[in-house]
Amino acid sequence: MKKSYIALAALALVSGLASAQSSVTVYGKVDLGMVLDSGNPSGKSIRLSSGVTGGSRLGFKGVEDLGGGLKAGFTLETGYCADSAAGNAATVKNGSTTVGTTTVPNFCTGSNAFMGRQAHGDLTGAFGAIVAGRQFSLGYETISRLDPFGSGYAGQTVNLVDPSGTRLNNSVRYTTPAVYGLTASGEIQFGETTGNWQAGRETGGQVAWANGPAYVAFTLYNLENANGTGAARKNYQLGGTYDFGVVKVHVMGQRGEGDPTGAKKVDVLDILGGVTVPLAGGSLLASYVHHNDKTAAAVSGSTGDEDAAQWGIGYNYPLSKRTAIYTSYAKITDDKNSFGKAAAFTVGNATETGTGNKGFNFGVVHNF
Amino acid sequence: MKKSYIALAALALVSGLASAQSSVTVYGKVDLGMVLDSGNPSGKSIRLSSGVTGGSRLGFKGVEDLGGGLKAGFTLETGYCADSAAGNAATVKNGSTTVGTTTVPNFCTGSNAFMGRQAHGDLTGAFGAIVAGRQFSLGYETISRLDPFGSGYAGQTVNLVDPSGTRLNNSVRYTTPAVYGLTASGEIQFGETTGNWQAGRETGGQVAWANGPAYVAFTLYNLENANGTGAARKNYQLGGTYDFGVVKVHVMGQRGEGDPTGAKKVDVLDILGGVTVPLAGGSLLASYVHHNDKTAAAVSGSTGDEDAAQWGIGYNYPLSKRTAIYTSYAKITDDKNSFGKAAAFTVGNATETGTGNKGFNFGVVHNF
Amino acid sequence: MKKSYIALAALALVSGLASAQSSVTVYGKVDLGMVLDSGNPSGKSIRLSSGVTGGSRLGFKGVEDLGGGLKAGFTLETGYCADSAAGNAATVKNGSTTVGTTTVPNFCTGSNAFMGRQAHGDLTGAFGAIVAGRQFSLGYETISRLDPFGSGYAGQTVNLVDPSGTRLNNSVRYTTPAVYGLTASGEIQFGETTGNWQAGRETGGQVAWANGPAYVAFTLYNLENANGTGAARKNYQLGGTYDFGVVKVHVMGQRGEGDPTGAKKVDVLDILGGVTVPLAGGSLLASYVHHNDKTAAAVSGSTGDEDAAQWGIGYNYPLSKRTAIYTSYAKITDDKNSFGKAAAFTVGNATETGTGNKGFNFGVVHNF
Repeated sequence: MKKSYIALAALALVSGLASAQSSVTVYGKVDLGMVLDSGNPSGKSIRLSSGVTGGSRLGFKGVEDLGGGLKAGFTLETGYCADSAAGNAATVKNGSTTVGTTTVPNFCTGSNAFMGRQAHGDLTGAFGAIVAGRQFSLGYETISRLDPFGSGYAGQTVNLVDPSGTRLNNSVRYTTPAVYGLTASGEIQFGETTGNWQAGRETGGQVAWANGPAYVAFTLYNLENANGTGAARKNYQLGGTYDFGVVKVHVMGQRGEGDPTGAKKVDVLDILGGVTVPLAGGSLLASYVHHNDKTAAAVSGSTGDEDAAQWGIGYNYPLSKRTAIYTSYAKITDDKNSFGKAAAFTVGNATETGTGNKGFNFGVVHNF
Repeated sequence: MKKSYIALAALALVSGLASAQSSVTVYGKVDLGMVLDSGNPSGKSIRLSSGVTGGSRLGFKGVEDLGGGLKAGFTLETGYCADSAAGNAATVKNGSTTVGTTTVPNFCTGSNAFMGRQAHGDLTGAFGAIVAGRQFSLGYETISRLDPFGSGYAGQTVNLVDPSGTRLNNSVRYTTPAVYGLTASGEIQFGETTGNWQAGRETGGQVAWANGPAYVAFTLYNLENANGTGAARKNYQLGGTYDFGVVKVHVMGQRGEGDPTGAKKVDVLDILGGVTVPLAGGSLLASYVHHNDKTAAAVSGSTGDEDAAQWGIGYNYPLSKRTAIYTSYAKITDDKNSFGKAAAFTVGNATETGTGNKGFNFGVVHNF
Repeated sequence: MKKSYIALAALALVSGLASAQSSVTVYGKVDLGMVLDSGNPSGKSIRLSSGVTGGSRLGFKGVEDLGGGLKAGFTLETGYCADSAAGNAATVKNGSTTVGTTTVPNFCTGSNAFMGRQAHGDLTGAFGAIVAGRQFSLGYETISRLDPFGSGYAGQTVNLVDPSGTRLNNSVRYTTPAVYGLTASGEIQFGETTGNWQAGRETGGQVAWANGPAYVAFTLYNLENANGTGAARKNYQLGGTYDFGVVKVHVMGQRGEGDPTGAKKVDVLDILGGVTVPLAGGSLLASYVHHNDKTAAAVSGSTGDEDAAQWGIGYNYPLSKRTAIYTSYAKITDDKNSFGKAAAFTVGNATETGTGNKGFNFGVVHNF
């Protein structure tokens, strides 16, 4: 009898521990790679960089079962710089005049904010899921899922294509339960301007279908301008992936419109084609992106009537379920070769915008 | 025999784990609510806000048993913004002249500092408890305990009443062991001005009695001015709560004095009355606060001869021990209707100061 | 049989927990002490300080076994201020002209950056160890190991002696496996200036021998200037410790050279002698440091032809394996008594530079 008491005591202790510990999971990513940029007239740049395939991060998350199928959860995720303690340059303004710059602590990704990558609370149940706080936009999640490089590496699609806001502050999203693989989502970012409900507001919607090897999504993104008088930016995305086993094919088209200032109409069409190929125990990644821009002049989210194309190639080799080595190369050609202009296209990665129209990287990523 | 070995091995593993894990506990709060402010001539404000009932936070704490009844512990608690990555505006000065503003990372509560909510080490034993570092002031802890809203929600008492410094930097507190429910505490915040031991120093003291349904506290707060020549602010609090079962009654009076500049004498009397009522599985919260200010002109901690009153009501419904939904409404009337002045009274919450003299909020708070 | 099932279930649960938890360890240090500086003509300073013996910190680390003797690991460590939420002063510049100052969030150590104390990924195996990211320099690690005070307390050697960069951004280090206690290490910090591979680059090397009671190290540190045209600073360190049981002896010499501006040649020789003595259940620490500076005028890392000497004494008494009380006193004498100049020598501690040429501290440090 003594034995079973001990066993039960052990079990009780374990249960106690399990419930005590189950409330918070600490997780994260350390991604460190060598990056070589070239093609910039100022010269080459060779760097040790943090967050090439995905931003280096530290996160805290948890789920609580409220009973009746209802669950409450949260995700708090901060970026950090795995490479350097150099600060971030912040502009100093006196009214609308720039009077200098200073240096502020740097979080590398997530708008340079503590817990700026994600910070939200979630309620899920039979009704679907409600997520409130700071979260990725539907448009950014879609482009990341359709891109073979997943919005990372030198080859990432967002080097050329507008990311639909990436993350939304002060936002609420609702997603239906999946019915035959079909889900619908709607999201709103409150502009939070006193006395102007529309100014800076963002809305989005998505219909997606996931079934075995197939995934298809249609996504809308609409950002109101600062006066709340019209759309500064609208994106329409349609795309999908199909996994044939020997190759996974990725395609996407994104149409961008908008009228941020009245004089400069955004008018962009982006096309992405790519593949993921299982190879030698790892994955070969490749994509081609064409960016056709008819916008009159440079505005936010558009370089202004500058057509460009990018091809990218990469390889990811897993050392374990959590650790991988990777390499990637990408090159952009644009019809105006715009270095020195405000909005040159450069080959970046998940954390950096890059300095040249050619970029190479290799490194190690470890998830914990 | 084999069974018991396994059981003991399990127990040993559990013990090992327990001791390894016992050194740090990760905890926190995610509070997200919709806030609607009105009454401001500039217009209404509707927002998704972080930390309505209490600041959204992430904490790390631990206790070590040193033997002989002595324990060492620590609490590190940082605020974060669960809603947005928007930065915090920081003033830029050239000497004493403001020359601009810039944007710095935002932690939403705790003086916008990493680990700014609490950061302290503790020694407890038969002698009582010593806490050193950054910690809540005795005055703020008292007001939070006497307020039915616990210094949160729209209805919080600190919308009108001075919070006695809220938190103290560079401080040491000593608390006696409880004798028949009676405890005494003393605290000092070092001003840390080179060559002036008194400048900016804060001292506080408290006698409190907790016994079954009753709680009574008398608290002092004294802040030296920047030259160390007298009290910039003195608060005397006396209050208590009594839980009758069907209703818990809250009362407090706070007298504020001070002489921050020599010309403007602070002279304030605040009265709080409130109730907490168990209702339909949750708690109904209500309070009335009267603020009688005879100060000649606006100084820190006083709006300057502006009498005001606030009534607030709220409801908290627990979905579990850790998760609750809540709502609250409060309205302030002041005899000078001071919008546009430097120190207008507004309905805020645990994180925000608010924009109007009427405020409504509802949301979800999850503790982990 | 039922009993063993329960025991096995308990064991399975424990194993599951252990592996889930093994990926991240949360650790840190809370160090709070009273500090009294004197000797500054402006007056004495008495403060509650964070991180006297070592910077107060919060860290996250983990190791993954990749098989075949290969392991991947990471260390992320941020400083925080255990005493205060006061911000850090940041200079505002317009081009190269200083136009003001502002206040930014403070992390107390680690270049005032989140995860600024350490942030690196590691690969270890039969080949040795590669560490990439932000890490301590070989020179700083050496001086900390040879100093009886371990680069903390009032008595720390780095009050007078250049710390060889302390930490290196964007750096990669390789260390050989130990052969008969002998290891060799090389490190590089990429300067990351576009088009100039040498500007700001740092390189270092070390040969060390550890065997029983003996430790000897020879370390080089070389920092290229901002144009990449020569060494701004070179340090050569040679030193060791020997533990006789009743006393551990510490000796080090450091020669500093460099040419940061062309006109001001750095020319410094530092000598350290010290002891660690087991005493009354704790450790008595003492050291003498002589700083002989022939540099023509003040440059970074040198006060400019100002000879100085420091003696320091301290005592550390462990209350447990993780918690200790400590005290220390140090005094600096310099031949120019340089208060009021740009580069006066002051008695600091692991976090602060201090304000006087005499410093006393006592406090409690708790590791978790």
